[in-house]
Amino acid sequence: MPSLLPDLLVTGRYLLPSSSQDGLMEHAGLAVAGDTIAALGPTDRLLGLYPNARHIHEPHGLIMPGLINTHTHAAMSCFRGLADDMPLMTWLQDHIFPIEAKLTGEVVYQSSLLSIAEMIKSGTTSFCDMYLFAEDVARAAATAGMRGWIGEVLYDFPSPSYGELENGFTLVREMVERYRRHPLITVTCDPHSVYTCSPSLLKRLGRMAEEQDTLCHIHLSENQAEVDTCRSVYGCSPVMHLQQMGLLHERTLAAHCVMLDDEEIELMAGQGVKVAHCVESNMKLASGTAPVVKMLARGMAVSLGTDGSASNNDVDMFAEMNSAAKVHKVACMDSTVMSAETTLHAATMGGAMALGAQDRIGSLAVGKKADMIVLDLHQPHLTPMYNVPSHLVYAARGADVIHSFINGRQVMQNRRLLTLDENDILARMSEIGRHIRDLRG
Amino acid sequence: MPSLLPDLLVTGRYLLPSSSQDGLMEHAGLAVAGDTIAALGPTDRLLGLYPNARHIHEPHGLIMPGLINTHTHAAMSCFRGLADDMPLMTWLQDHIFPIEAKLTGEVVYQSSLLSIAEMIKSGTTSFCDMYLFAEDVARAAATAGMRGWIGEVLYDFPSPSYGELENGFTLVREMVERYRRHPLITVTCDPHSVYTCSPSLLKRLGRMAEEQDTLCHIHLSENQAEVDTCRSVYGCSPVMHLQQMGLLHERTLAAHCVMLDDEEIELMAGQGVKVAHCVESNMKLASGTAPVVKMLARGMAVSLGTDGSASNNDVDMFAEMNSAAKVHKVACMDSTVMSAETTLHAATMGGAMALGAQDRIGSLAVGKKADMIVLDLHQPHLTPMYNVPSHLVYAARGADVIHSFINGRQVMQNRRLLTLDENDILARMSEIGRHIRDLRG
Repeated sequence: MPSLLPDLLVTGRYLLPSSSQDGLMEHAGLAVAGDTIAALGPTDRLLGLYPNARHIHEPHGLIMPGLINTHTHAAMSCFRGLADDMPLMTWLQDHIFPIEAKLTGEVVYQSSLLSIAEMIKSGTTSFCDMYLFAEDVARAAATAGMRGWIGEVLYDFPSPSYGELENGFTLVREMVERYRRHPLITVTCDPHSVYTCSPSLLKRLGRMAEEQDTLCHIHLSENQAEVDTCRSVYGCSPVMHLQQMGLLHERTLAAHCVMLDDEEIELMAGQGVKVAHCVESNMKLASGTAPVVKMLARGMAVSLGTDGSASNNDVDMFAEMNSAAKVHKVACMDSTVMSAETTLHAATMGGAMALGAQDRIGSLAVGKKADMIVLDLHQPHLTPMYNVPSHLVYAARGADVIHSFINGRQVMQNRRLLTLDENDILARMSEIGRHIRDLRG
Repeated sequence: MPSLLPDLLVTGRYLLPSSSQDGLMEHAGLAVAGDTIAALGPTDRLLGLYPNARHIHEPHGLIMPGLINTHTHAAMSCFRGLADDMPLMTWLQDHIFPIEAKLTGEVVYQSSLLSIAEMIKSGTTSFCDMYLFAEDVARAAATAGMRGWIGEVLYDFPSPSYGELENGFTLVREMVERYRRHPLITVTCDPHSVYTCSPSLLKRLGRMAEEQDTLCHIHLSENQAEVDTCRSVYGCSPVMHLQQMGLLHERTLAAHCVMLDDEEIELMAGQGVKVAHCVESNMKLASGTAPVVKMLARGMAVSLGTDGSASNNDVDMFAEMNSAAKVHKVACMDSTVMSAETTLHAATMGGAMALGAQDRIGSLAVGKKADMIVLDLHQPHLTPMYNVPSHLVYAARGADVIHSFINGRQVMQNRRLLTLDENDILARMSEIGRHIRDLRG
């Protein structure tokens, strides 16, 4: 419970505290004390209780939890549209890897700022990032006032970021220590995947995650090629390989999970593994459709991630919800699966659960952190409104978000970013784009 | 060629005259004389040629052809979110049909205005509409200055619009006559489908389309249930049934076409049938994935349609392009199919070809009608830019469109509608929404 008196009231036409239409309140809002939600309720009551608090009122506004993007590579915004519509390996090996090898911390910092700007402007208040130069990603998130779970990706090869692998372990340990008490940034341990990390790397980083009590974030069973490679090298599927490495547990956040069979879902569910479902990236790269409906039926914590802008090509969680709700219907040939409420849950509480932060974020409740967004409902595509989760999943756009608050701090007001200089970011990114185009020759 | 001197110049950072990146011009724009494009080229040259024309310049603007939505039911915007995530027949029979039976021309008019407002605000400049009370849809389009192909839907049952079927034929003939010389509205002949129209209805409306030289717009092979019903009643597939009715020809615009086999694609391609592909509706209703890649390989004119807002739930063609480009990649498990340029072509020239209007719209060229939109590229999700079609299909949103011109007339300026009173439409639709909620009880 907050000890401070609320200093901010945010009220609107509607307040949706969670993903459930049943919880909808009309002419309501919330009171914030410092970084924490102090009260929820009717606008009149809040105004009576806290007459001296700063008051933001949106007559056509819908207040809801900020969205949680559990798998992205923010800095890949500098590659958006550089290479599309090609086979995965051509894309990676001929276009992405050669340029990634020349990345610098400064490019990662600027490109992360760009992605974070896009995320805030489309309703995301937390993201989970795996990339090179993670300290620069963390610096960008802290600068923006964005909540982030951030990890330096480790693999067997020398990294443009830290060089030899041994330095990678040192870097991760130092980062975990440095951010341990940070109000916004949490550091994670990120082995890239079973096909780029040796068993010893996986085991050692897994132990470090356990010792340091961090999340272990890994790409898992993204496509058939990964499964085939793993079977030929280790004689088992990626999931079974991770199990043998001792890496399938409650602290594991597995991104993609496209190629899971029923037995693997059972195993992962039983061990509390969390899933970041990246539906648009899986579609665009023709990876397949993850068996999310089965995972949910088995009670797994399924969250949504955009993946990086090079394979999506955006970090807009409203678009991701829209795709997720629709793709599984056609994949299952059943229009009742992946309902609007289920999908909205995945993008909010599901995300919080995947990050082990369900006590702090994912819904609007007294005592939780004030991470929330306000949408403008006074628009043709949102009028009339019969059901709020339906509108949020099937009709709303990231551009409908007008205000955003993270940890009690307003980071966007009427679509203007308050913590970042958008024009400066765009100018720097245009320059970086020219440089990348030159690098390609 | 226009006989008038250009009275309007629209210039920007980029001009994309068609769906091809190769045609991109930088620091360029176009000159408009009346309703017609008079010149395209570098901004400096246009300014030198036409110094007295009104000049709209967007330093960060991309000028491109307006998008063409070839299958929608605009008035269904009043049902958006009323009922989702349920089996198709429950949705139709328990939720949509009972309320449609109580529709009035005024509700259709207001709801069509709402959809048209949403279409203009998301970059669409032409739409093809099939619905009840088509005269009210046409009135809404004419009021908005929107280009429309509009038809009254006919079926075997009495209609809330025209009553007995015979009146429907009279209505269609009169509408065709009334709008024959209208600069924006073209009337179409619209049998609903093979499962709601008797053979005699199909044949008679088909003959009328031929006599009146109009498009024949029909739902075709939308899902397995339609195919099964047709086989059990007529002993053949919907496509073969239409062939027997003499309705498979160059003037036929077939919406959906999900359940086509190779032989049917071959037949339809050979006879020049046009297709309106409605990918998001097909996903949301779990109808299936249309074999669009095969249709394109066979040279068919494939266009994109949003379907109505009750099954999408929007009429945003940018979202439709995004979904179409991604779904076919995962459906074919091939990341090279349905490229950005292919998808953008379907939403522009493909639409023009589907409507038989490729000489007038679908691309920006001298002598064509001035139907064009301007996007604001100065945004985080569109910076940097390496490839314009990629950005338009994979990253841009309807909300990025700032100006729109239809038939040479500006209908939106800085996202403000110039031909419609948006606040008035929203107020009326809120009222209609309350009424519909009451009707449901």
